[in-house]
Amino acid sequence: MAQLVVTYGVPSEPAAFDRHYSEIHVPLARAIPGLRRFETTRGPVLTPEGPSDVHMIATLHFDTLGDIAAAFASPEGQAAAADVPNFASGGASMLMFDTVEL
Amino acid sequence: MAQLVVTYGVPSEPAAFDRHYSEIHVPLARAIPGLRRFETTRGPVLTPEGPSDVHMIATLHFDTLGDIAAAFASPEGQAAAADVPNFASGGASMLMFDTVEL
Repeated sequence: MAQLVVTYGVPSEPAAFDRHYSEIHVPLARAIPGLRRFETTRGPVLTPEGPSDVHMIATLHFDTLGDIAAAFASPEGQAAAADVPNFASGGASMLMFDTVEL
Repeated sequence: MAQLVVTYGVPSEPAAFDRHYSEIHVPLARAIPGLRRFETTRGPVLTPEGPSDVHMIATLHFDTLGDIAAAFASPEGQAAAADVPNFASGGASMLMFDTVEL
């Protein structure tokens, strides 16, 4: 399995972020071709010392890294990516990788 | 479900990191009480623009955030945490959170 992990920094208006994310961004992300599973953090993202500078993490699961590349190139992927600046005032960083279960 | 995500920066000697991780750290981590699933990245961790400054990400799955707290407090969790400085020359950061599937 391959994962695309999107880490969102704390936005200027967290409630507005959450509303936009659930009402607009989730439907856009769910339409991305090749998406197998879609999960997000719920509640605070913590460090061992306490609060972090992360508001939310979304993990999109695909079969392969090639499928993630294809998803980025698709109209649905482009639409989801184009929506990110509309709500991610705290920034968004993306990492992608293959995974193995130990 | 709750996750503990450990992100390792690129170490000074990646091959030595990988050897220590698989031979010594994985057995220590697998012994942590309450651990439900254990997965790591395999191969490079990429950004949309290319290579990242991340060498590897380990995700430890537990039932609840309380179980993660208990795991940290356990002798097995303490032993795994104490081993991290032995190989993580590129640093290690930890985040923990509850997840929800969309």
